Amino acid sequence: MAGNSFGTVFKLTTFGESHGEAIGGIIDGCPAGVSIDFDAIEAEMQRRKPGQSAIVTQRKESDSVKFLSGIFEGKTTGTPIGFVIDNTNQKSGDYSHIKDTYRPSHADYTYDQKYGHRDYRGGGRSSARETACRVVAGAIAKQLLKGVAITAYVSSVGELTLDKPYSALDFNKIETNPVRCADPELATQMEAYIKDIRKQGDTVGGTITCVLQNVPKGLGEPVFDKLHADLGKAMLSINAVKGFEYGSGFAGTQLKGSEHNDRFNPDGSTQTNYSGGVQGGISNGADIYFKVAFKPVATLMQTQETINNLGEVVAMKGKGRHDPCVVPRAVPIVEAMAALVLADFYLRSRLSKL
Amino acid sequence: MAGNSFGTVFKLTTFGESHGEAIGGIIDGCPAGVSIDFDAIEAEMQRRKPGQSAIVTQRKESDSVKFLSGIFEGKTTGTPIGFVIDNTNQKSGDYSHIKDTYRPSHADYTYDQKYGHRDYRGGGRSSARETACRVVAGAIAKQLLKGVAITAYVSSVGELTLDKPYSALDFNKIETNPVRCADPELATQMEAYIKDIRKQGDTVGGTITCVLQNVPKGLGEPVFDKLHADLGKAMLSINAVKGFEYGSGFAGTQLKGSEHNDRFNPDGSTQTNYSGGVQGGISNGADIYFKVAFKPVATLMQTQETINNLGEVVAMKGKGRHDPCVVPRAVPIVEAMAALVLADFYLRSRLSKL
Amino acid sequence: MAGNSFGTVFKLTTFGESHGEAIGGIIDGCPAGVSIDFDAIEAEMQRRKPGQSAIVTQRKESDSVKFLSGIFEGKTTGTPIGFVIDNTNQKSGDYSHIKDTYRPSHADYTYDQKYGHRDYRGGGRSSARETACRVVAGAIAKQLLKGVAITAYVSSVGELTLDKPYSALDFNKIETNPVRCADPELATQMEAYIKDIRKQGDTVGGTITCVLQNVPKGLGEPVFDKLHADLGKAMLSINAVKGFEYGSGFAGTQLKGSEHNDRFNPDGSTQTNYSGGVQGGISNGADIYFKVAFKPVATLMQTQETINNLGEVVAMKGKGRHDPCVVPRAVPIVEAMAALVLADFYLRSRLSKL
Amino acid sequence: MAGNSFGTVFKLTTFGESHGEAIGGIIDGCPAGVSIDFDAIEAEMQRRKPGQSAIVTQRKESDSVKFLSGIFEGKTTGTPIGFVIDNTNQKSGDYSHIKDTYRPSHADYTYDQKYGHRDYRGGGRSSARETACRVVAGAIAKQLLKGVAITAYVSSVGELTLDKPYSALDFNKIETNPVRCADPELATQMEAYIKDIRKQGDTVGGTITCVLQNVPKGLGEPVFDKLHADLGKAMLSINAVKGFEYGSGFAGTQLKGSEHNDRFNPDGSTQTNYSGGVQGGISNGADIYFKVAFKPVATLMQTQETINNLGEVVAMKGKGRHDPCVVPRAVPIVEAMAALVLADFYLRSRLSKL
Repeated sequence: MAGNSFGTVFKLTTFGESHGEAIGGIIDGCPAGVSIDFDAIEAEMQRRKPGQSAIVTQRKESDSVKFLSGIFEGKTTGTPIGFVIDNTNQKSGDYSHIKDTYRPSHADYTYDQKYGHRDYRGGGRSSARETACRVVAGAIAKQLLKGVAITAYVSSVGELTLDKPYSALDFNKIETNPVRCADPELATQMEAYIKDIRKQGDTVGGTITCVLQNVPKGLGEPVFDKLHADLGKAMLSINAVKGFEYGSGFAGTQLKGSEHNDRFNPDGSTQTNYSGGVQGGISNGADIYFKVAFKPVATLMQTQETINNLGEVVAMKGKGRHDPCVVPRAVPIVEAMAALVLADFYLRSRLSKL
Repeated sequence: MAGNSFGTVFKLTTFGESHGEAIGGIIDGCPAGVSIDFDAIEAEMQRRKPGQSAIVTQRKESDSVKFLSGIFEGKTTGTPIGFVIDNTNQKSGDYSHIKDTYRPSHADYTYDQKYGHRDYRGGGRSSARETACRVVAGAIAKQLLKGVAITAYVSSVGELTLDKPYSALDFNKIETNPVRCADPELATQMEAYIKDIRKQGDTVGGTITCVLQNVPKGLGEPVFDKLHADLGKAMLSINAVKGFEYGSGFAGTQLKGSEHNDRFNPDGSTQTNYSGGVQGGISNGADIYFKVAFKPVATLMQTQETINNLGEVVAMKGKGRHDPCVVPRAVPIVEAMAALVLADFYLRSRLSKL
Repeated sequence: MAGNSFGTVFKLTTFGESHGEAIGGIIDGCPAGVSIDFDAIEAEMQRRKPGQSAIVTQRKESDSVKFLSGIFEGKTTGTPIGFVIDNTNQKSGDYSHIKDTYRPSHADYTYDQKYGHRDYRGGGRSSARETACRVVAGAIAKQLLKGVAITAYVSSVGELTLDKPYSALDFNKIETNPVRCADPELATQMEAYIKDIRKQGDTVGGTITCVLQNVPKGLGEPVFDKLHADLGKAMLSINAVKGFEYGSGFAGTQLKGSEHNDRFNPDGSTQTNYSGGVQGGISNGADIYFKVAFKPVATLMQTQETINNLGEVVAMKGKGRHDPCVVPRAVPIVEAMAALVLADFYLRSRLSKL
Repeated sequence: MAGNSFGTVFKLTTFGESHGEAIGGIIDGCPAGVSIDFDAIEAEMQRRKPGQSAIVTQRKESDSVKFLSGIFEGKTTGTPIGFVIDNTNQKSGDYSHIKDTYRPSHADYTYDQKYGHRDYRGGGRSSARETACRVVAGAIAKQLLKGVAITAYVSSVGELTLDKPYSALDFNKIETNPVRCADPELATQMEAYIKDIRKQGDTVGGTITCVLQNVPKGLGEPVFDKLHADLGKAMLSINAVKGFEYGSGFAGTQLKGSEHNDRFNPDGSTQTNYSGGVQGGISNGADIYFKVAFKPVATLMQTQETINNLGEVVAMKGKGRHDPCVVPRAVPIVEAMAALVLADFYLRSRLSKL
């Protein structure tokens, strides 16, 4: 089975190569009766869009989404929601430099090994352009999840790390700077650093922290589809992601049980939240928080040695316009994938009891 | 939809509560013609079993598995493999201390919130006893994956950390010590530390590193079912796991692209392996390696304050025999889940090309 | 993907060969809080059981089911329900007559072609013994579907056909005769005919009609998972079934639209019910009725010519005790499969609206 | 879960309402390397198209399909194939006569009951326009199934019935007449009858027979996903279908086992084929043949009494241009659905053996 669907009840299936005619998707399983705010969807697309600031790729992409079905008189009908995003800028055409050449740490080699036949134009299916469809679907999922707050922000760029816990941050600051870091001072440093990296023709990695608030209790389907397990898969399915931790995460492995256990308050809430809002794979109503690791972008504006499909060593220089650091634009993608997971598990939770 | 199935083609569905009559499962989708080595399955079960050493729980559990179908004259028939493991030790009976009480950082509270009605005996479905079924299925998956080497080991206990890369270790040492650490000297320290923690009635977390070698190229189903994404989900679905990273992981976020990119050799292999054997979600033939974070076990042999289902504060003391540190016994579980993912994606990869 | 699961939300997965150690299954997705009446389950098993009357096989089978999980203090817990039925009578052992021989119109040849390796004892997985698991799960589904009436009866044996519409029958008569025909007079003729067929060492086919009453409106998931489409698949998955029709069925193809359309009453009910309770794939609250065609049992108590796996012609005589006509014992199986479909679509319908 | 996907490995998901902006779909799981003949796809679309002859609806519909992804340089790439078909003729706009009114034996009432909110324009999602997407996907499935012959034809219109077995027919005659009946003489009568029915403002039902030849042995996944069970579901999911039978079908219920059993030839083929090419749910290499029952179209060009959503009785007259008999245009749809099933099971069969 191929792997272009995400979710079980609220299910997104996507299609599209970066330089084909269009990308798009189908959401099957969105219940009838959800009022759709198209401006809110457009706003999410703007957050993911290339060219939005000086520190992201200056590539031009039409990210305008066209809905083809499933919404009538402003509300979902319960039938599948089909949508497309045209690839208006895809004619360019000269891909001879990558047609037979495998870019280091890209998917060119593995796609050839797996499929034997690949759309080499601009990365084809492995391009991050595919994530635009995730943002569309995530924006609809957010509208289904009335009352739930999903907030992501950049928590590190290279070694520049935001050390404060999320609870010490003002989320209103996130969108005030192009890095999408919740700490404006650190954001300024990050921005300068990214510009410097770009001048070098290099790239750098970073992390994003995401917080889910007002999540209903009872979401999660043990023993395999634990809520955090599907959140982890969702994040790891985003291009360039290398790691995921939630709650106390890797640091929590160094604690003792007596330090790590979250004591209950009489109302069922807990005094601490090392659990990260999930116990036994099921949400407990506390904030869910997790961190996602992104590697540095593989496309460099430098000359690199690589090989072609004959195994010959060739020199390759990145063409076009690429992100020196992916995390600022990945913030809405992280949120979108979190929204997809929550919408799916929210609907699934309706089936738990008679 | 409930979440007790794992995998798409090689699919495991499990059932069972820790103190019910039995646990068990069904593997549907194992191809016909796999020769089954029952001793090898039994050996995996022994590695997971309670009471195997002085640093794990001394609880007695029958982990003897009985196969009921799908194997005939020593080979799989392509029909579903049903198996059960009896809960021989489950009569005990006095659960009044947990019936109405929610243990801190356990799943008692969330199961009640989700289902309204719960088998409270010994943790019920949320007990780690459930992982015995994963080990059974993983052992069969390993037998399907002839030639692939799956090796996990403890890489930290609390702050005691094995800093060497896996390539500097002798995997033959792993099973020479009860901690399952590949470095015998460090293993001795870890063992002493775990004994000390146990004396305190406390628990501690740790990490496990897993290495997959000789994995065929081409495994992984983008864009959502990337190989590492499903490995991540598999690990995060194991009790007590809080994090997952593969390849360069969280540390890789601090590198530049020019440092992180894996240069090709003419034969398609790479000079470095920051990618962790997966590019664009598809295996490239290099070693796959990842690390899994386990929190400290929540059951303490200390008195803790907690609440009951009336919201009243009550004192609770752990009864029975529990693991002071879960990682030694989790090593075969990590391997089993990795085997399930690889078997599933190996079969799925047969469908990639005409 | 193998095909041993049925349903999407209320999902049954089964295992087991007729002469292996046991058969059984797992129901995943039964909501918590369903009160389980074990006697009612047992009663359904008795209806399917061999040896229950003079016109069915006199084979002895233990059809006693053992529940292993998912039910606690008389109610479902929302966790998977595992169950097994031991094959107590399977030791017998002499299968040399079928080991290398393909019985005509059985599955021996196709299993060998497909899997290469087959459990030849007593039909293995292709034996109708497998349907016992369907009856167990169907009995639980019935208990979930409070208020829905599911009634099947034999509507023909060979050319002996019950021509009255279901509405003209007294369903209380069905269980008063061993044929399970709702018309006692015709039942007597059918019984005599079956006895005669058995004396000849021959077998005969028949049909079963099934009526579903008090089904909630809104069940069915267009455009592919129409309610009647999944009912059809459910029935066609039962051994020996060759056809399915619902509502006006094949006869309805000869009507004009002006005759066939069901006029509405002001309350939304209809004056006629050619639609068979389903319109556009969704239940409309009217009775759902359908008919299922069963071919004659392939195992004859006569000598037949056939071939072995070397392509040699051999003579074969049916051994053991077999049903001369399958429909009397298939009645509870038809009901069970209908219950599984309704339970699944009932739960799925909870997801249709916000 | 919603039901707009069909297939497990070769999986089609569709979207679209008849009078929305477009309909379309995604095929996920088509292997890489299938050469695509776009003219052949277009030819299938022409067979389904309105206005193709004097006996079908004269409605104008653009059935021109645009492929957006998954095909590169004339071959599939293994990535999802997205496609859309614009609804060019959908502006019309006056639906006041059906907005609040439930047409008899249509899906208006049940959609309202299920979803609460419905796109009432032209039938919305329940319109048979949706089947255009099935034909697109089926045409690709046919190209995957090199060597398999899939042939459907009209075998009855009202009481006019083609009594010959398929083996006595010349399939080359099917496309020589607008009815798509394989017997030209009967076709002429059928054509005259349909014209007469249309003059009456009435409609009539019919049946389609379909024959699958050169199907590989071993397709089918017992015990639930038997090949004929999924063929049955596929057919029953087509608008207006009321019944399905394969092989000996309903008539076979009247035979004795000694008449019905298919004797083997030494090469594994059979002397008769009452089994219909499937034994135990698995193809045996013989021809697969089945018959599908279609009810008369519900939209009449007559005035009918019906109700509105307030339960008031209103008079309604069919507007627009509708098919007096659906079977001629349903022939390519039946073939398409058969192709989808075969493609899916062909790929699944690759997983049966090690």
